[in-house]
Amino acid sequence: MKIVETVAEIRRELQTHRSKTIGLVPTMGYLHEGHLSLIKRARKECDIVVLSIFVNPLQFGPNEDFERYPRDLDRDAALAKQAGVDLLFCPSVREMYPHEILTEVRVRKVTDRLCGASRPGHFEGVATVVTKLFHIVLPDRAYFGLKDAQQVAVIEQMVKDLHFPVTIVPCETVREPDGLAMSSRNVYLSEEERKQAVILNRALTEVKEQLEKGLLITADEVNRYVRERINSQPLAQIDYVETLSYPRLEPIHHLDQRPIIVAVAVRFGSTRLIDNLLFGGKEESACSGQ
Amino acid sequence: MKIVETVAEIRRELQTHRSKTIGLVPTMGYLHEGHLSLIKRARKECDIVVLSIFVNPLQFGPNEDFERYPRDLDRDAALAKQAGVDLLFCPSVREMYPHEILTEVRVRKVTDRLCGASRPGHFEGVATVVTKLFHIVLPDRAYFGLKDAQQVAVIEQMVKDLHFPVTIVPCETVREPDGLAMSSRNVYLSEEERKQAVILNRALTEVKEQLEKGLLITADEVNRYVRERINSQPLAQIDYVETLSYPRLEPIHHLDQRPIIVAVAVRFGSTRLIDNLLFGGKEESACSGQ
Repeated sequence: MKIVETVAEIRRELQTHRSKTIGLVPTMGYLHEGHLSLIKRARKECDIVVLSIFVNPLQFGPNEDFERYPRDLDRDAALAKQAGVDLLFCPSVREMYPHEILTEVRVRKVTDRLCGASRPGHFEGVATVVTKLFHIVLPDRAYFGLKDAQQVAVIEQMVKDLHFPVTIVPCETVREPDGLAMSSRNVYLSEEERKQAVILNRALTEVKEQLEKGLLITADEVNRYVRERINSQPLAQIDYVETLSYPRLEPIHHLDQRPIIVAVAVRFGSTRLIDNLLFGGKEESACSGQ
Repeated sequence: MKIVETVAEIRRELQTHRSKTIGLVPTMGYLHEGHLSLIKRARKECDIVVLSIFVNPLQFGPNEDFERYPRDLDRDAALAKQAGVDLLFCPSVREMYPHEILTEVRVRKVTDRLCGASRPGHFEGVATVVTKLFHIVLPDRAYFGLKDAQQVAVIEQMVKDLHFPVTIVPCETVREPDGLAMSSRNVYLSEEERKQAVILNRALTEVKEQLEKGLLITADEVNRYVRERINSQPLAQIDYVETLSYPRLEPIHHLDQRPIIVAVAVRFGSTRLIDNLLFGGKEESACSGQ
């Protein structure tokens, strides 16, 4: 595995591989099993696997955790190598933003709700940095985890709308043995918060069972059920609980359309966790810019 | 020369030429000598020359001339073939926008003034369609005329900011024998309007002489001079006359910085013409996404 820090060098490295299938796994590092599952999937499907690690300041709000976001490049590099990465691209902020950036990629509508509403500017930051990474690496396939289902929806929309020559491969959320979705932010949790955080997955799993049995009929009923279950944990503070169409993320009333998403964001102290249930779709189908 | 109407077909045609230098000349058709000069330049510098002809609805305002914009594909195809184009890409609106587009590429600041101010949404439409064309054709070099100097500034900024793997080649404005800048919109002009329209270039040429002699000191003086000269023509209605820094297009007071642009937009009846003087720069330098 080669570690590369500059745009010029990653381009030079990839120059000779243009006829091969290039897979990109874009991450913010502090790798966990979720990231590793993306790398393994890319390893299976591509000739060259590029992992990017870049904590992108553009997608953090002024009061968010950019500064304290966990970083450990040495550990990440060891895990990446072991998982079969060919090129680890870890540019500095200065390398990715050498001058004031005036250009922004914005996806409307799909970003109106959920994290798009509670984190203003977040998805513009994501869409813009993913565009940059796509232009730098020119991957044939790019791998994203479905824990960030809205991010997947935003990037698939962007790829279709702008004819990016890349196939987006959404991959299923990887979970701890007790069901908590893997996240680099889980390290922020105190012991007690960590215990209570299991409620996110538990509530969503219960909703899934009830949906399968036809016991929940409207989005309101689903949301009420999930809110009550999460509020049973004293340290949990709900940011949002929403049941929407997927991938357009539009409000629905009855649950007769498919697929739907039940998405939650919950704070435990200063740590904000998200999770979701995608129900009734082929969640893992790939999408490309035609 | 091959004429291609679909995204899939142009990609297929270019697939076998990926190791060659591909040049793209993006136009809205109704070709004139200005367009042909771009094609000739591309022909000299590239192995494969792609001409795109697409009247992009996204960059026209609701009260602008999208419907009546002149079109003549047969004539364009003959001229393109003669000028040495290899692939003429002329997609339908439906082919370029098969579904509602939710993604927008926006360049801030550089679009605050001139046509960015008088045509709200125009440069978002331009940046978005150019992004799509770049993703479809994946050119090594793309050619744009400096009559649309703000467009060149916007696209160069976008290419740098988003790391597009393409070199932008700005090319000098081509003019009629009497100095009027070539434009597809010149056909709208009545005989009398056509005569009076010469004032745009005449005023700018006079300003250039005075700048060279050091007779104009401030941006205000330049603007006042140009306004007076244009207002000497009874059919001319000024939209804007501005003297700014280039390519950032920021207001300046004294003319000691270089390069500067003196940009004008003038209506003759329902026809809106633009022209500009770039002064003191290396206008034709190429710019690439790092």
